[in-house]
Parts: sequence; structure tokens; C-alpha cells
Amino acid sequence: MDKIIRINMSGLNGPEIKTQSLGAYAGLGGRAMTSSVVAKEVPASCHPLSAENKLVIAPGLLSGSAAAMSGRISVGCKSPLTGAIKEANSGGQASQMLARLGYAAIIVEGKPKEDTLYKLIINKDGAAISVDNSLKMLGNYELVEKIKAAHGDKISCICIGPAGEMKLCAASIAFTDMELRPTRHAGRGGVGAVMGAKAIKVIVIDDSGAKMRRPEDPEKFKTANKAFVAGLRKHPVTGEGLPAYGTNVLTNVVNEAGAYPTNNFTSGQFDGASKISGEAQAELEISRGGKAAATHGCHRGCIIRCSGSFYDKNGNFLTKQPEYETVWAHGANCGIDDLDAIAQLDRLDDDFGLDTIEMGAAIGVAMEAGIAEFGDAKEAIRLIKEVGNGTALGRILGNGAAVTGKVFGIERVPVVKGQAMPAYDPRTVQGIGVTYATSTMGADHTSGYAVATNLLSVGGSVDPLKPEGQIELSRNLQIATAAIDATGMCLFIAFAILDQPETFQALLDLIGGFSGQPITADDVTHLGKTILKVERDFNVRAGFTSKDDRLPDYFKSEKVAPHDITFGVKDEDLDNFFNF
Amino acid sequence: MDKIIRINMSGLNGPEIKTQSLGAYAGLGGRAMTSSVVAKEVPASCHPLSAENKLVIAPGLLSGSAAAMSGRISVGCKSPLTGAIKEANSGGQASQMLARLGYAAIIVEGKPKEDTLYKLIINKDGAAISVDNSLKMLGNYELVEKIKAAHGDKISCICIGPAGEMKLCAASIAFTDMELRPTRHAGRGGVGAVMGAKAIKVIVIDDSGAKMRRPEDPEKFKTANKAFVAGLRKHPVTGEGLPAYGTNVLTNVVNEAGAYPTNNFTSGQFDGASKISGEAQAELEISRGGKAAATHGCHRGCIIRCSGSFYDKNGNFLTKQPEYETVWAHGANCGIDDLDAIAQLDRLDDDFGLDTIEMGAAIGVAMEAGIAEFGDAKEAIRLIKEVGNGTALGRILGNGAAVTGKVFGIERVPVVKGQAMPAYDPRTVQGIGVTYATSTMGADHTSGYAVATNLLSVGGSVDPLKPEGQIELSRNLQIATAAIDATGMCLFIAFAILDQPETFQALLDLIGGFSGQPITADDVTHLGKTILKVERDFNVRAGFTSKDDRLPDYFKSEKVAPHDITFGVKDEDLDNFFNF
Repeated sequence: MDKIIRINMSGLNGPEIKTQSLGAYAGLGGRAMTSSVVAKEVPASCHPLSAENKLVIAPGLLSGSAAAMSGRISVGCKSPLTGAIKEANSGGQASQMLARLGYAAIIVEGKPKEDTLYKLIINKDGAAISVDNSLKMLGNYELVEKIKAAHGDKISCICIGPAGEMKLCAASIAFTDMELRPTRHAGRGGVGAVMGAKAIKVIVIDDSGAKMRRPEDPEKFKTANKAFVAGLRKHPVTGEGLPAYGTNVLTNVVNEAGAYPTNNFTSGQFDGASKISGEAQAELEISRGGKAAATHGCHRGCIIRCSGSFYDKNGNFLTKQPEYETVWAHGANCGIDDLDAIAQLDRLDDDFGLDTIEMGAAIGVAMEAGIAEFGDAKEAIRLIKEVGNGTALGRILGNGAAVTGKVFGIERVPVVKGQAMPAYDPRTVQGIGVTYATSTMGADHTSGYAVATNLLSVGGSVDPLKPEGQIELSRNLQIATAAIDATGMCLFIAFAILDQPETFQALLDLIGGFSGQPITADDVTHLGKTILKVERDFNVRAGFTSKDDRLPDYFKSEKVAPHDITFGVKDEDLDNFFNF
Repeated sequence: MDKIIRINMSGLNGPEIKTQSLGAYAGLGGRAMTSSVVAKEVPASCHPLSAENKLVIAPGLLSGSAAAMSGRISVGCKSPLTGAIKEANSGGQASQMLARLGYAAIIVEGKPKEDTLYKLIINKDGAAISVDNSLKMLGNYELVEKIKAAHGDKISCICIGPAGEMKLCAASIAFTDMELRPTRHAGRGGVGAVMGAKAIKVIVIDDSGAKMRRPEDPEKFKTANKAFVAGLRKHPVTGEGLPAYGTNVLTNVVNEAGAYPTNNFTSGQFDGASKISGEAQAELEISRGGKAAATHGCHRGCIIRCSGSFYDKNGNFLTKQPEYETVWAHGANCGIDDLDAIAQLDRLDDDFGLDTIEMGAAIGVAMEAGIAEFGDAKEAIRLIKEVGNGTALGRILGNGAAVTGKVFGIERVPVVKGQAMPAYDPRTVQGIGVTYATSTMGADHTSGYAVATNLLSVGGSVDPLKPEGQIELSRNLQIATAAIDATGMCLFIAFAILDQPETFQALLDLIGGFSGQPITADDVTHLGKTILKVERDFNVRAGFTSKDDRLPDYFKSEKVAPHDITFGVKDEDLDNFFNF
């Protein structure tokens, strides 16, 4: 990982590709890389769809090595959804492959003048770009089949569906999984719209001839990796809960805690939760001849394997096993308790290239506006199809919950900085409320998963219903997460490293063994703080203030059942969040 | 004007009406009143459609008196379009009538729970409110006919059309004119959506039995009024240009200056300008048996009379004479050179209750997105009808240019703080560019009409193509305008008071004669500064920063013909705007 591919789409005679050394970006990976490039090179005031914005794709520091769990990839840009800096994170095969080819980042800049679509190919010989308008408006599934027919199945794809081409603010970037299916997505913030504005439909990666990245201290690395894996296997969440049921294991837990947002955040409990829980999902999948519920990792090298496959009534593959957030967004948040309908919605989202969280939130707001009834799965499916077809209504929804609320004159819109809240009511899990409010990303659970400590007693215990201690909890988690997002590690390792000091030490040794330079917990904290400050500084330059670090007012006045509670963390405490 | 009507729409048993003394608001009128109430009583973070927002309607300080030109009224709230404070200003009969009934302000707060619509009646006996769901979704013209049938024709109406009921961000509030037609509008910022959120369809004002407001010093007042009128009559703009052709007299002037935004701000000159100019409009109207072009004042007491009537091919009244801004918005900005089509669009806007500037800008952006061809008048009419019918596409457009741009993924969207720019290219008239950028209202020509000095040599002369002197020009004009907007005076008096010191002195004497307390030019400046600072402070509390005091980036990089010029005022100079 000693070079960057830089593609200028504004070249006079078409796109220009340069391969560069890392320069000032040496030593950065994942989110540290994407946020540094965006903060340094993108004018904070620019329009997110303009030539001035850049799309940065970066494997993590450990990606491409033998380190377990290290195959996550970061996508960065100025977000069309929020107007703030964005890092969206995904699994898939691209991270390991790019890293093994030696690329620390792909940076796409500029904007072609003509209405044309490009295909970028990256392999051991370098990068090549060509016009391919035959790919226009293809869904991700059909697109990947076409690419496979042309390039074989030893590749992986980074691609956008029609949503990205239409530059919708909920457009994702898909990363193919081990079966070469477009099931993994950098979902949030409309990164797909930026790829669409750059007019790149697909990046085909072929790592034939490339080798696994070698650690500087092989012995230390190997020992640490073993201890790290053992630590993950012995923790109840990463060793049992997630492998058994996938992320959807959370549904019953969060619903019982009264924190499961239902019907556009009007209640914290959903009557139909047991019908869409991880347990119900596993049962259904097994009844259709599937294996145990969770059978897949999102990338090679994953040992938690919290994903799986969802088969329809006839036993045909429909989509990956829908994640907890997806089941919630298209389920409880829209009053829908039908796993088959939710899986169909997931498949449509993946095919059109849409963020499932943002789409579920947008449909929830549309249901509050009376566009469809809560609980009407058929209508929800029709609405997502409108998005894929690019109708006026579809474009409204495809631009996310905030735009949907504005267009339909709805006041109760659960967004922060324009990005929809995920599957935890911030009134009932006040730590995640702090994360939603303060994250540089807009409402985002992954940027500081306080649910772990608030509801699962991981890394200690902080009462979810009280404001006390939530700022510190969210701050520590956001700092740690930013660092993890730089390594290429899956965020789920946090359960084990928060609870088990020896597993955290194993992670430090893994990184130190790889780079040959020992690192300490303080180094990790320093890295996390640096990333957050770089991101925060970009947002300040883009016009964000502490007034944007707020939940919508109604979370402070409207009580949510069953705890009949409002969000209690004070504004002045939120304003102290970044004092570190 | 010694009392306020306060209506709480959240009352347990329906709306509650209180009549109050002025208290801390004593001595305030128009914009000084609306901005003071909003800044003091509305939480800056609230959702504009929430119960916490307030709708404030206030006659000017001199309204209801015999002072010429004093019949303008201010509407204030937190704007659904911009999220900033808003004052939108209108003619019509309501200002004089409310003032004579003794009301300095109507303040509507709260929000009814049920989906029901109210009618408010204000007369010498006080105020009464009642449910009237038979008015639902009526256009302003039909609504006013219905009200007239019930209440006679000695009344005036403040009302919303379907756009306000749908809470669209381009919804206006209509004020009936002397012929009891809904032709005068507080257009900008979506004030109609706030009235819609409060569920008040119409305010019927009957001033029977009320008397003209009496000056404290009748002799001084009478003499000053005479001098003031003489000053207006002798100035070439207010005495000749405006009465002869209406505001549309500007079209040829601005087009020749190369500052007439064409096809969504892609050029500064429009080939069809001569077909839609004030001169062409006058000729057309006379050919259809109309009188001289400008024949109407927007309120009793107007002596400029820059308005008129537009008759269709069969000689039937279609709409008021479309204003310069309307002719531009639906004309040049959409490539349309057909006065009949423009008049139809104006009529539809007035009937649905829509801001003509925002709608023209939104359609321009939609045309750039390929929804219709530039120049296609039929399609433009169809699009406005979609807004009135509340289709998905209509709701997109009806929420203004910024939402339209976001939904269709368009980068070139001419807005500041989410509000569309009016009819002057800020690259070619850089003084108005400063006003667009820095106004507390979002892009707005009326808040500091630098065009006067940049193009018309009124109040001195500042080269429109250079950045030098524009900050000071716009600042002085914005301060003066804020003060004028507090008096109830029509902004067009500025032409005469800027050029003729004796007319300015007459205005001071008019105000001093009315109140009995002499005022100086410094007092006026102090009032204007105070208003701007109150508004600015609200916006800061709402999360606005100097980063919002910017034109979109492309005005700094994309040259506009015929001068091939970009906006040259530096960011750091814009940041100094409020240092006064």
C-alpha cells in the first residue's frame, strides 16, 4: 500500500489517471485516509455534486494482510445528504484486493462534461478507464452479471445502481461479496451520488498476481492474530450471538428495552417484533432448507460471520440475510412485520443502490404524511420501486427522510444534519442520542455505538434512560471507533476489545507486529482524536456549528412509550463534546 | 395601534383569542414588530411548521394614517424555506384597515391537533374564530368570492391558497387589493406554509366604524405629506418610469446592462426581452382596450401607482399587471417570451398562493434538469398546475428551487440560504450580490436594492461590475430598508429619498409629525441597524454562520455573458458586512 490512483474526470481528452506515491498521506488507512484527503483537498463550501468534490476509496491499514476481520473499506467525500464530511464503511472483497495490489486510496476528482458513463479497471498492471454507456441504469445485480461475463469471476466490483446515476442523496456504493454479489454497501450519506456525479458506474478490481501483505514482525503478528481470534471467539456477542443469529439478534433485545423505534419513532416497542427478530429469521431460513442463520462473513478473513443468505418461498436466493438495521428500517419503522417483504425491500435497495436505513426512514416519514398506511408492505415495495424508476415521488424518497419531510410538510422527521437516525430511539438509549447529535457524520450508530454499554453492558454499564455519563461514553466510543475505522477492522471487534483487556492488547500487537512499530492504547486514542478533529474542522468550514449538534426539538418534548421519556442530555453538555 | 391580537391555536377547547396591550413592543411597526416578536418568542431551533413557530402580521408605523404610500404590511415567522428569520412584505388593504382598528400586530401561535381549517374575523368588536372546512383547498380567487358573498365587499382578506394548506415552502400569503382581488402577496420564504400549519385559511378584516389614525402634530404632518408627495412626483423613477410602465419598465434596462438572468442564470441577456418588456406590456394592454399601463396602487394612499390590470385576448381580466420580478422569473429565467403565458402563470401563482420568484426559479432549475425545455410555456403552465394539484412533482417544485435542485441532482441552483435569487445576476450587479449573500432573509432584492445605485445611478453611482464599494453600498441600503419596512412605507420611496434630501426630510417630518416626537436621520439609521441585528442574532441562534453569507460557489467560477464576469467580492469582505 504505497501508492494512490488519482483519476481526474475533467481531463481535456477524457479522464486522466495518475499513480502517485503517498506523500503526506503515508501511514494513513481507511477513514484516516478518506477524511484527511477530503479535509485537505475538497473546498468545504463546494456543491457535493460539483467537480470540486472528490470521492476517496481507501482500504484499512491492515487490509490485505492475514489479520482477521481486516477487510473493511472506507469511502469518503463531502456528503450530498448532509453537506458535511462523510466516511461510509463497507465489507466486500475490494478492500483486501486493493490493498494487495498496493493501493492505499483511489481518488476520483473533477467531472466529465458529456453525459457518458465510465468503467474503471484496476489490476496488477495499473488502472485503465473506458466509456461504457451500455451499463446505463443497470441494477447492481444485472451490472455485476455483465461484468462477470466480460471479466470472469476472480474479480470484485465497486459499483452504483440507478440511484447513484440519478444522484439521489440516499444512493449507496455497492461492494461485491465473496460470491460476487452486490450485497455489501457503503450506504450512508449519498456516497453513490458522488460516484454518479463522477460518472463512474463500476470499478472492476482484479488482484491476480498480487500477494498477501506481509507483516514486518511475522512472529509477533501471528501470535497476536491468534490471541485476537481467540478473544473474539470467547466473547458472548462475537462468539455466540452474532454468529448464531446475525445482527438481527438485537431485535428482541432492543424491543424489550423499549428502544425499538416504531412507526416513524412514535413508540419504542413494536407488536410485530417477534415476527421479524433474528430468532424468527433463523427459523424461517432453516425451514426453507437454509443452513444455520449466520453463515457468511462480509469479507474473507472474517471469523464472526454475522451474515447469511435469505431464500424465498421457493428456495431461491433472494438477498443477503437482512441486517438488524434493515429489518428495523423497513420493518418496525414502517409498521411492517413480514420478513419476506423486508427481504424483498432489501434486495431492491441493493439492486438500485440505496441505503436501507435512509430508505426505511424516508418511507416512515412518507407514511406519516399519508402516502401509504403504516404496516402496508405492498405499498412500501411499490414506493421503493418508484425510487428505482426515478419517478417524481421516487426521487423525493430517494433523497432521504429530510427531503421527504420537507416536501410533504412533515414536522416529525428523525434526522440529524439531514441524515436519518438508525434503529435505536435516542430518548430510550440516551448515549446513542449523544452520538446521533454530535457525530461529524449526522445521525449514525456506527460512529459511537453507545448501545453496547447502555443496553448490552459491554465496556461497563451506563443507564440508558438518564443523561448522566452519556457524553463521556459517546466521546470515548467515537474516538475509539474513528481509530478502528482507520485499520480496516470490522467494528464488531469492539465488543471483545472493550470487555477483554487481553484482546485489546492483541489488537495493539497485531497492528504493531504488522508495521514493525509498537503502538500503545494512547496512540490509538490519539489517532481517533485526530480523525475526529480533522472531520470537525471540515464541517466548521462548511458552516456547521454546535446548533447542528442537536436532535430535532421534538425528541426533547415528545415522550416515547413505554418509558414515557424525552431526551435529557443538555445542550450545553453536547457543546462540550468536542472539548478533548 | 395600541393592542395586539394573540391567537393560540393549541387551546384545549379550540383556539383562544386574547387582546393585549403592546407592552415591550410599544412603538414598533412593520418589520420592526415582526422581527422583534419572532426573535423574542420563537425558539430559534424549532421546526418552522411546529407549534413553537409564530406567525406575526404587523401594519407599519404610519399605516392607517393619511401619510402617502404607508399601506405596506409585514409578515414574520421562522421561514420554512430558509430556516432563518423572515419578514415578507405586501401591499393590499389589510395594513390600513388593521391599523385603523387599532391593531399593531396579529400573533398566531400553537397548532391545532385536528385536521381542520379556521376563519378569523377581525372588526371593531374584536376578533372571532370559527371552523370552516368548506374552504379547504380553495384557490384564492374562489375563496375571496365566497368570503365576499358572506361578508360583503367592504372587507379585506388575508388568505392562503392550496399551497399554504399543503405547507409548501414557496407558499405565499395573499392580501386583497382595492378591488378585493387576491393579487398582493407576502411572497417570500414560505410564510403561507406557516399560516397553513396554523390552519388559518383566511383572516377577514372589516374596518367599518374605524377612523383614520390622527397625527399628533396635524400641521407638521400635513405639510410634510405634501412635500413628500411632491418629491415622489418629481423624481423620474417614481414620477415617470413606474407610473408609465409599472415595475416591468426595468426589463429593457437590466437586459441592456447584461444583468438579466436567462435560462437559469446561464446568460445575462435574453433574446426575447423586448417581447416581454414594460413597453411591450403597455402596448399589448392598450391594444386590448386597457388603459395606460400602470393604473393601480397596491393600496389606498399610493400615489406612484405602479400596478395595473392584465386582460386576456377576449378583454377579460386575467390578473394584475405582472411585476418585473414575475415577468423575469416566469419569462427570461425559463426562456419564455410570451406575455400571455407569463400572465397565466402569474394568475395561477396568485390563485394557488405561490411566490412567483421562487416558482420561476424552481421551474428554471427543473428545466436545467430536463423536466421541460427552456422556452416551453405550455410545459411551464402544466408544471405550475401540478403544484396546485399537489402531485409529487408539484410538491417538489412548490418547495422551491433548492429542494428542486436537490431532488433532481442539479448543481447550478441560484439560491442563498435556500431562497431563490431574484431578477438580477449578482455577477453583473455585484452590489445586489452582496445583498443576496448577506441579507438575513436569504437571496432577496428588496432588502437592499443596490440595483438602484449600480444600474440606475440613484443615490450616487457604484460600478456594478467591480467589487469595490459594494459592501458599503449594500450595508447602507439594508439598514435604510429595514427602517423603511418598519414604517409601512412602500420601498419605492427610496428612489426619491436617496436622490432628494428635501424628500428625505419630508419623510422624517412625516414620521415626527405623526408621533409628535421629532426624529433625525440618525434615528432612522439606528432603527435599521437595530432591526438587522435582532434578525442576525436570531439566525446565529438558529445555526447560521458567515459560511451561509455566500453565493453558491459557481458564481465565483462560472463567467456570465455578455460581460464574461464572475462575482468578485471577497469572502472576508462579506464577513465584515455586519461590523456596524
